[in-house]
Amino acid sequence: MGKRTHYAGDITESLIGEKVRLKGWAQTRRDLGQVIFIDLRDRSGIVQIVANPEISADALETADSVRSEYVLEIYGTVVQRDEETYNEKIPTGTVEIRVEQIDILNTSKPLPFQIDSNQEISEDVRLKYRYLDLRREEMRETIKLRNRVTKIIRDYMDDNEFVDIETPMLTKSTPEGARDYLVPSRVHKGEFYALPQSPQLFKQLLMVSGFERYYQIVRCFRDEDLRADRQPEFTQLDIEASFLETEEFLPMIEELMKKTVKEVLGKDVETPFPRMTYEDAMNRYGSDKPDTRFGLELTELSHIVGNSDFKVFAQAVKNGGIVKGLNVKGAAPKMSRKEIDELADFAAIYGAKGLAWLRVEEDMLRGPIAKFFTEEETEQIKSAMDAEPGDLLFFGADKKEVVYATMGALRLKFGKDFEMIDESKYNFLWVTEFPLVEYDDNSKRYTAMHHPFTSPLKEDAHKLDSEPENVRAEAYDIVLNGYEIGGGSQRIYKKDMQQSMFKALGFSQEEAQEQFGFLLDAFEFGTPPHGGIALGLDRFVMILAGRDNLRDTIAFPKTASASDPLTGAPGAVSEQQLKELHLKLAIAKKEEQTK
Amino acid sequence: MGKRTHYAGDITESLIGEKVRLKGWAQTRRDLGQVIFIDLRDRSGIVQIVANPEISADALETADSVRSEYVLEIYGTVVQRDEETYNEKIPTGTVEIRVEQIDILNTSKPLPFQIDSNQEISEDVRLKYRYLDLRREEMRETIKLRNRVTKIIRDYMDDNEFVDIETPMLTKSTPEGARDYLVPSRVHKGEFYALPQSPQLFKQLLMVSGFERYYQIVRCFRDEDLRADRQPEFTQLDIEASFLETEEFLPMIEELMKKTVKEVLGKDVETPFPRMTYEDAMNRYGSDKPDTRFGLELTELSHIVGNSDFKVFAQAVKNGGIVKGLNVKGAAPKMSRKEIDELADFAAIYGAKGLAWLRVEEDMLRGPIAKFFTEEETEQIKSAMDAEPGDLLFFGADKKEVVYATMGALRLKFGKDFEMIDESKYNFLWVTEFPLVEYDDNSKRYTAMHHPFTSPLKEDAHKLDSEPENVRAEAYDIVLNGYEIGGGSQRIYKKDMQQSMFKALGFSQEEAQEQFGFLLDAFEFGTPPHGGIALGLDRFVMILAGRDNLRDTIAFPKTASASDPLTGAPGAVSEQQLKELHLKLAIAKKEEQTK
Repeated sequence: MGKRTHYAGDITESLIGEKVRLKGWAQTRRDLGQVIFIDLRDRSGIVQIVANPEISADALETADSVRSEYVLEIYGTVVQRDEETYNEKIPTGTVEIRVEQIDILNTSKPLPFQIDSNQEISEDVRLKYRYLDLRREEMRETIKLRNRVTKIIRDYMDDNEFVDIETPMLTKSTPEGARDYLVPSRVHKGEFYALPQSPQLFKQLLMVSGFERYYQIVRCFRDEDLRADRQPEFTQLDIEASFLETEEFLPMIEELMKKTVKEVLGKDVETPFPRMTYEDAMNRYGSDKPDTRFGLELTELSHIVGNSDFKVFAQAVKNGGIVKGLNVKGAAPKMSRKEIDELADFAAIYGAKGLAWLRVEEDMLRGPIAKFFTEEETEQIKSAMDAEPGDLLFFGADKKEVVYATMGALRLKFGKDFEMIDESKYNFLWVTEFPLVEYDDNSKRYTAMHHPFTSPLKEDAHKLDSEPENVRAEAYDIVLNGYEIGGGSQRIYKKDMQQSMFKALGFSQEEAQEQFGFLLDAFEFGTPPHGGIALGLDRFVMILAGRDNLRDTIAFPKTASASDPLTGAPGAVSEQQLKELHLKLAIAKKEEQTK
Repeated sequence: MGKRTHYAGDITESLIGEKVRLKGWAQTRRDLGQVIFIDLRDRSGIVQIVANPEISADALETADSVRSEYVLEIYGTVVQRDEETYNEKIPTGTVEIRVEQIDILNTSKPLPFQIDSNQEISEDVRLKYRYLDLRREEMRETIKLRNRVTKIIRDYMDDNEFVDIETPMLTKSTPEGARDYLVPSRVHKGEFYALPQSPQLFKQLLMVSGFERYYQIVRCFRDEDLRADRQPEFTQLDIEASFLETEEFLPMIEELMKKTVKEVLGKDVETPFPRMTYEDAMNRYGSDKPDTRFGLELTELSHIVGNSDFKVFAQAVKNGGIVKGLNVKGAAPKMSRKEIDELADFAAIYGAKGLAWLRVEEDMLRGPIAKFFTEEETEQIKSAMDAEPGDLLFFGADKKEVVYATMGALRLKFGKDFEMIDESKYNFLWVTEFPLVEYDDNSKRYTAMHHPFTSPLKEDAHKLDSEPENVRAEAYDIVLNGYEIGGGSQRIYKKDMQQSMFKALGFSQEEAQEQFGFLLDAFEFGTPPHGGIALGLDRFVMILAGRDNLRDTIAFPKTASASDPLTGAPGAVSEQQLKELHLKLAIAKKEEQTK
């Protein structure tokens, strides 16, 4: 037993002849009778060790008892391999270690899955045995990449004089936004803390304090029903700065992104990033987070077909909706009628009641709806959509929101299906000029599109009281390859404007004071102009690592039902614990028993 | 309005003649009629600006309306001050800015307290207006120091190839240790997550995964009744490493501490740190976290006075207790009889039933108990305690625990009261060889002194089943100036030993499996030898910043009743929220109404 001299991945020809001591795992073992080969793995990589009776009979005997994933300490000499046994797949492939001593530090049962294979493993098994799943190289590399990304971010923020300040995890529940995770208080009967959905209010208070530049890589929580790309707890890079105009702030974020992509992937990203208004993004891509790695933009057709004989189109426009077209170049011969018809089901997911389409042929448009259009309309459609023979045209006609959602999703689907996307690209984009508020049909009131602390654009601010729906926000989302990886804004920093905003959102003055009184109070004591951004670290890492599941970027993630198959969280707690928290379960006894 | 060109604190003579644009707060304003001086403060410091009618009548008019803490943007020229007005207290004290333009970016009401004074402000007011409290220089500097400390730590950990890995905040409640904060699950009826008291199990699982070197600066939670030096949420530097012996691991931590103290305070700390066994620490200092910046060690007297005529001493020894003495050199003339008698009340806090004492005079010991000792005993006491005329001797006689607690606390009190402590020292110390378990009189069973995953010392491991109380742990606490700033250990990494440990702690096999099954399972799949440490960041920063309250190191701390006067957390939540969580309050209706 002794001190490790080297990592496995560092054993190369420069060490030939040297005695080394390694510690790691037996990844594979091949027994050739009088010779046993073991691939020894540690955090750095793999090296082959060889035991034979000429070197040490003891070591050979121990090697004989080694099984996969045993933990070993080995001592031996680095030698050149026979040239015909070179393994070009690994950096240590031209050498091996002739072992004089092997100590088994720990044993292992056979694993539930092999860690060096690419076999498909069910998500449940992977999560239950997460500690083994994390032994797989792609998982290990993703977690290490995440570490590199956070280090690059921290160095950059530090170089730019941002101060890393921790904000509370046990804070107050507010009814705005998503559902809070609550934490019952033992000391304060019947009261609860809430886990933060973001440190928004605290970082604004830090600006009131005069720190001027704050950042934090911070855990946030949302108790919402999960999708593949959501986790109940997630990590964001949270930034806030005082006295910086948007035009001063955005370039700082661009430099950070550029630096990260360069250092992690070796790729150059051009700055400044392109910008697109929200309106433009919706119009052209049907999405506020367009993937600009490919074209396939939507075409506005309302003015052309709004009076046509095709009732679906005419009616949509008459009801205040729109008609948008999508020209999938050259797709006509590639898609069968059946495949086209099946797209209606896809469109239905997004609320569309059907999906109209036309094939472009040499001298005509062909398809079930072709007959409804006059020659002039047909020509105008072709011209607007740049239609050429072989193209396949799709149409969405409905309320704006439905058309955007449907045609935006179809665009992405075609982009992927027809391999229009250049996967080597890292396309950053700022989406700007979001509406400040949107009308919520359920609650019959306006809700903040970002959050209630977002400042209106200066030129729209005067409309906040009279026509809030027409006020654009001084907000910006950052989009990478069609993912929204962050969003930010200049903030309201004057009390009267913040009060107007709460009023626009339907808060009474009492409600506003009750919930956000401390912020309104703070605004009275010399609050500087400020703004900031929050970037989703998990998603950013996911894109950089080339993964398509957020869970792969998190060491111990939750399932879609917010549980952890490894530890069994969440779980039952004792009566005593509930009593101390002044709580009772509101579950029928019978229900409880059958659980 | 324009872009800031400089920070206030950077305006020095090298800029004389230059036009500058600053943004910040009006700290003070002095109106001399036709000239107005304003101290402009930003994150970097303070600079004086001067408005007069010869430069700009507009600026003077605006300056006239400025009040304390208004947010200003100013534009002007840097000039030399008249020599008789130099302010040597600030780096910018030889210059001032003649302002051509002042824009008021925001106003301020009069503050509830002045931020540039040293007036005593009540903790409640400070916390309610934390955003103003944080404007005070000492608070700002403490938070910035914390930022520097974490950056130094991260750089060091990164340089040493530790990987920063995030572990879950929503995890499973375990009955071991302190009380968990619970988070009810909406999806899983009647079940709860727990906020982590530490990422102990997850970091051990990461070692099973083969990351080998992990660290995290991580929020942890304990729902315990708070003392001045406790917070419900606190931050620890959490470290774990595989394949490193204690003798390889501790020097890494020592280097980190040395580097941090050097970079933050410019002070040199010697390595390796001194070490002391737990037994030695208790014997000599009555504490497992001795402040070694001064002597005043306890003297063992049981063998001298165990058979004396003084019943209190004799009885204590007879009952298995001990007698310890403390010689406060030269204190006899400094303390009145009344002051000495009052110390009995202090001793009572620690469970002592009284406090015996003796003054050392030229030829005798004088005091109420002197008469009980024979001449020989008196000489032996004097000799053992190195007593000289003018010394004041104190004695504790009781059960070990009571004597240690009392005499240890008295030692610290005298050290402070008589200014024996060299405040310029940073004395690190490792305390080692802790008992693995201690007997808990309440639950009538053994509990883990650190936690149930701590490995026994190799040479004591064979006693784990038969006499666990005599097993020493391979554990080490790190102590700085009498504060425990961290604790760590080698961990158990074999399933059978972990099972023995659970058995020693009174777990049935089923209980162990139910609560920690996933760890026991993991130990079967090739777990490497590993160990680690957790350091309390809040406390470490507190010592480095020379503060004596943990709250000063935390931007938004909680009060002693775990509430936040700023946001009002915790607070009531809606019926709807409770319903979604399948909970009812267990509070009598009447009680609820009168809240």
